[in-house]
Amino acid sequence: MKPITLQNYAEGRWVAGSGALAELRSAIDGEVVALTSSQGLDFAAMLGFARKQAASSLQAMTFHDRAKMLKALAEALTARKEELYELSYNTGATKADAWIDIDGGIGTLAVYQGKGRRELPNERILIDGNVEALSRNGTFQGLHVYTSLQGVAVHINAFNFPVWGMLEKLAPTFLAGMPAIVKPASATAYLTEAAVRIMLEANVLPAGALQLIVGATGDLFDHLTCQDVVSFTGSASTAMKLRTHPTIVRESVRFVAEQDSLNASVLGPDATPQSPEFDLFIKEVAKEMSVKAGQKCTAIRRAIVPAALLDAAEQALKERLSRIVVGDPREEATRMGALVSTSQREDVRARIAELARDSAIVFGDPGAAPVNAKGAFMSPVLLRCERPRDARAVHDVEAFGPVTTLMAYADRSEAFELANRGKGSLVMSVFTHDTMFAEDIVLDCGAFHGRIAFIDRDSAKESTGHGSPMPHLTHGGPGRAGGGEEMGGVRGVMHYMQRSALQGHPRVLSSIVSRFIAGAPTKDAGALHPFRLKFHDLALGYQLKTKPREITMDDIEHFARFTGDTFYAHMDEEAARANPLFGGRVAHGYLILAFAAGLFVDPDPGPVLANYGLDNLRFVKPVKPGEAISVSLTVKEKTLRKPDQGEVRWDVVVSNGAGETVAAYDLLTMNAA
Amino acid sequence: MKPITLQNYAEGRWVAGSGALAELRSAIDGEVVALTSSQGLDFAAMLGFARKQAASSLQAMTFHDRAKMLKALAEALTARKEELYELSYNTGATKADAWIDIDGGIGTLAVYQGKGRRELPNERILIDGNVEALSRNGTFQGLHVYTSLQGVAVHINAFNFPVWGMLEKLAPTFLAGMPAIVKPASATAYLTEAAVRIMLEANVLPAGALQLIVGATGDLFDHLTCQDVVSFTGSASTAMKLRTHPTIVRESVRFVAEQDSLNASVLGPDATPQSPEFDLFIKEVAKEMSVKAGQKCTAIRRAIVPAALLDAAEQALKERLSRIVVGDPREEATRMGALVSTSQREDVRARIAELARDSAIVFGDPGAAPVNAKGAFMSPVLLRCERPRDARAVHDVEAFGPVTTLMAYADRSEAFELANRGKGSLVMSVFTHDTMFAEDIVLDCGAFHGRIAFIDRDSAKESTGHGSPMPHLTHGGPGRAGGGEEMGGVRGVMHYMQRSALQGHPRVLSSIVSRFIAGAPTKDAGALHPFRLKFHDLALGYQLKTKPREITMDDIEHFARFTGDTFYAHMDEEAARANPLFGGRVAHGYLILAFAAGLFVDPDPGPVLANYGLDNLRFVKPVKPGEAISVSLTVKEKTLRKPDQGEVRWDVVVSNGAGETVAAYDLLTMNAA
Repeated sequence: MKPITLQNYAEGRWVAGSGALAELRSAIDGEVVALTSSQGLDFAAMLGFARKQAASSLQAMTFHDRAKMLKALAEALTARKEELYELSYNTGATKADAWIDIDGGIGTLAVYQGKGRRELPNERILIDGNVEALSRNGTFQGLHVYTSLQGVAVHINAFNFPVWGMLEKLAPTFLAGMPAIVKPASATAYLTEAAVRIMLEANVLPAGALQLIVGATGDLFDHLTCQDVVSFTGSASTAMKLRTHPTIVRESVRFVAEQDSLNASVLGPDATPQSPEFDLFIKEVAKEMSVKAGQKCTAIRRAIVPAALLDAAEQALKERLSRIVVGDPREEATRMGALVSTSQREDVRARIAELARDSAIVFGDPGAAPVNAKGAFMSPVLLRCERPRDARAVHDVEAFGPVTTLMAYADRSEAFELANRGKGSLVMSVFTHDTMFAEDIVLDCGAFHGRIAFIDRDSAKESTGHGSPMPHLTHGGPGRAGGGEEMGGVRGVMHYMQRSALQGHPRVLSSIVSRFIAGAPTKDAGALHPFRLKFHDLALGYQLKTKPREITMDDIEHFARFTGDTFYAHMDEEAARANPLFGGRVAHGYLILAFAAGLFVDPDPGPVLANYGLDNLRFVKPVKPGEAISVSLTVKEKTLRKPDQGEVRWDVVVSNGAGETVAAYDLLTMNAA
Repeated sequence: MKPITLQNYAEGRWVAGSGALAELRSAIDGEVVALTSSQGLDFAAMLGFARKQAASSLQAMTFHDRAKMLKALAEALTARKEELYELSYNTGATKADAWIDIDGGIGTLAVYQGKGRRELPNERILIDGNVEALSRNGTFQGLHVYTSLQGVAVHINAFNFPVWGMLEKLAPTFLAGMPAIVKPASATAYLTEAAVRIMLEANVLPAGALQLIVGATGDLFDHLTCQDVVSFTGSASTAMKLRTHPTIVRESVRFVAEQDSLNASVLGPDATPQSPEFDLFIKEVAKEMSVKAGQKCTAIRRAIVPAALLDAAEQALKERLSRIVVGDPREEATRMGALVSTSQREDVRARIAELARDSAIVFGDPGAAPVNAKGAFMSPVLLRCERPRDARAVHDVEAFGPVTTLMAYADRSEAFELANRGKGSLVMSVFTHDTMFAEDIVLDCGAFHGRIAFIDRDSAKESTGHGSPMPHLTHGGPGRAGGGEEMGGVRGVMHYMQRSALQGHPRVLSSIVSRFIAGAPTKDAGALHPFRLKFHDLALGYQLKTKPREITMDDIEHFARFTGDTFYAHMDEEAARANPLFGGRVAHGYLILAFAAGLFVDPDPGPVLANYGLDNLRFVKPVKPGEAISVSLTVKEKTLRKPDQGEVRWDVVVSNGAGETVAAYDLLTMNAA
């Protein structure tokens, strides 16, 4: 097959690099599959193009608009995913490995589009947290918001997941309203390039929203500003170099790093060779060694077991590893494909040699070259460390391949110590059925691990496993793992936005965030009841104030009998008087709610389709028999959910005759648009 | 007065530094007020002491325990604050300046203790966000938590707020369960040392929780790990040096920087010389120049006005500045005290010279040395920049003293551009009464400014002003401001904790976070109704399942008549049938709630004192006449609020005869302990 010449996508054009082209070789047979270069690109102009062309287009869209864009990208990739699968074999990945990369990547887009529409507003500004009272009379208040960064996200990706690695960063970036420049690792850049082509051809991205560099980044970093973000996945050494780039430091450019780490898997002290957790542990360690030939930043590098189970675990693992068929990823029988390149294999062999200084190889021959001479195949390698507390290499050296070291702990505190000796990891898995052990390990080890997966007999069947970052959950970890975080649902979106604290009169704040804040001006509904207005005609602050209604002792008794809620505070004067909060009979909270609705509901058919929820209800002050309540109902927030329906959030305040608030809540209705 | 020899507080002992002592001089008369050195300290041992002694003690406390500790510190400082005020004059601060530092610092502790008790749980692990469904049957779910970092917070503070600057960092640090080592800037370290003594003498901190370095930090940074945090306030150049320290980079040590920035204040295009906002703007700019003699990271350095108002603004500012009395801060007539030192004044003069390259000095003589020859007094200096779009110094050079440059914009977009030319700031203030302008400036400038204060005729009286960071709100900013964040209420606590994603069966997750999660095992209440159990006897997962109750058409009609809620969906079959969500008459949501209470309430006096709230209620499925509902009531979470009362959060699920959920919510009761 003739090698493809990869192209960069810069300033709206596909362009091949000039000068000498680098050769990218197949992991399976060493043949050249692609040629690549980024020479000749004007990196400053690429940044400028994204900032000028794309940033304002993306920022003009709401979160929901951007979510729809992600959905379209996912659909486009799904429709043409077979092209990607075909290219993927050359990376050494099996079909199952490619599924993680390709379908996993598309699934991440899908989760983000769903979360974008459900968990983010149909607005451009995102509110963070509650209004903060900063003054006695409420004329000066505080509120945090996120707005889109006005620069470019530069994504530096690793070779192991050329599709997922790009999409897990693009999804939150686009949702945040930021354009991106993607720089994949060269070894597998041909697969990334193909995926970028599919996305661009879907024609849903604003010009400049996505650019691609297939080669070195030249002077790109020299032109970054505080409005840009670098999101890096790869080795600690490269991260260190980039992180200390003078421009990054001088401009406080956000730098998110996700680095390979020495992830641990711990078998709990409750396990026995007969317990389900023992089997699950063995299965998972072997699986993590073979998936992607162990080339995952999340793979288990250190398998930690109770001392009494060390021999049994070694035997069971060896038995399981011996059944792993290494071979051409296209062949059905193959369980483990090739490393990405022969140079990668050399690196793994060198690391194994370091590890072997304080551990013994108990399975696999790192020097062997199975399958064929030109591919980057190797067998899984298991090491055993006898004195892990004294050992250094096992906690410091990462062989980024099918390599794990088994070690034992004497007691819980040693287990925790060993787990934390990795100096920060992306993930730790814990195989235990003992919730006390689970609690303790979170308290003692939580701060060292970005994710902790508990797998046991109850969860194993549905577990997504040790090694799989989920888009819903943060992916990243402290220390050696880079100190960064990605994904985590909408959390990941915030990495591409700036949080600012706003202060001002509620009139101003309300207007900025499109939410009525108490203290902002209201508009009296007068004769036109708000239930008569369609979604789009309801203005924030539009307010109905009802007439009062007395709650009589008869009402309370009647309500109690009717509903069956004969709680003593409503029914028994003597007992209610003894209650420290009431000091006498009071109306039911639910009676107050029901009468409030009776006061504000306009009964005839109209735009209001349903009351479908209620948030943050607090009964602030008891209502005694004979007191009257009245209600103010104010349009607080609106979110269009379908072309013809929208959610209206109402601020409801129920007051007594003295004007004191007795209950306050948010009411949710679905309204016709 | 004989100079004090300052002491370090290291490894539980007060100890003076050895070797040559540095002289700290009074800002007012140049006399030596203190001598200081940190030579001879074993910095690695200090870190070790904190990690061993203090970290586990602090981590063993709940957030509420730690909040009480903050309260005790605030009380101790309040009782002895006059000692601090007396020392403060030597820093050049007036009484009003010292109030910001000392009372402001104590107030920050107070806000944090309140937020700690109200907004954080009485636990050691903090839940972040919602449970994430990761599996079809719910046996494998995800949840984010924060746990305390297991290292030490190193606080590097600036000279300008020796008390507040320490306390605004200590409050979230201690609340997070982390010990701290405080390193104040030397110039005013005597005031910090005095405040540390008061806190230690209050005897409420675990050993090792607070250590003090009055001098250089030696090899401290070489011993940091991924479990430590450096929180830095000061100049950009020092931040750059520390941020690139090899250990910081290698170990991904968290580094939070808050740097001086070129904060802007913008007068809106709606202002006229007669508008209240014009006066408010002039007043604020002059105030920010004189408070702390302009030595605030948040001070206004760039005053940006509509072109038509440039001359008027200059006149008004000059008039106001001319009334500022510079003098000995002890004297009552003094409006502005001294800079912290004569060397600081030299630095400010040098910066003014740089600024004067593209701006003209229109008020004040930077070379003058008012009041006396030995103090660090200077007059306010106002510059005017004619062509701010072309100027560089005004957007790049900060004179950390009573110095501001006035400039004009032609239109909105130029106003936004100039505001953002500061390349990232801590705060921007905007004086406008036009909410459209407010909206636009947040969208166009939000990403450049950590805080935006809107001040107008409605909010001015209660406004806390441009320059005051509030503990409720984040303090920090992108780019030149350092890219960090501090405070922001509980947000600031998270800087000292690690977020981890947990995955597992709900049984395991529930146990770890002390919250019942659906899918975890429940314990059937059987004959013992949960309302019969006291707070401490209620176990998470304890569950009452009620018998069913039919909701008849009569019930619906009766409820409608009784409450007055005759909404057509309940009363008019034909209209209800046309409703896209119901397709026929349905029961009121409030009727479902009321009947649910009737089913689960146990009426006799007992530990349940009140139903005081309801959260996240959703009506999931309509209930038609003739359908029966039943309720499950499960103990979800418990928070002790007083020695004898605690809040119980119940998971309530209302189901129909087919077992489908029709409504779900959290119910809150207050229970006797």
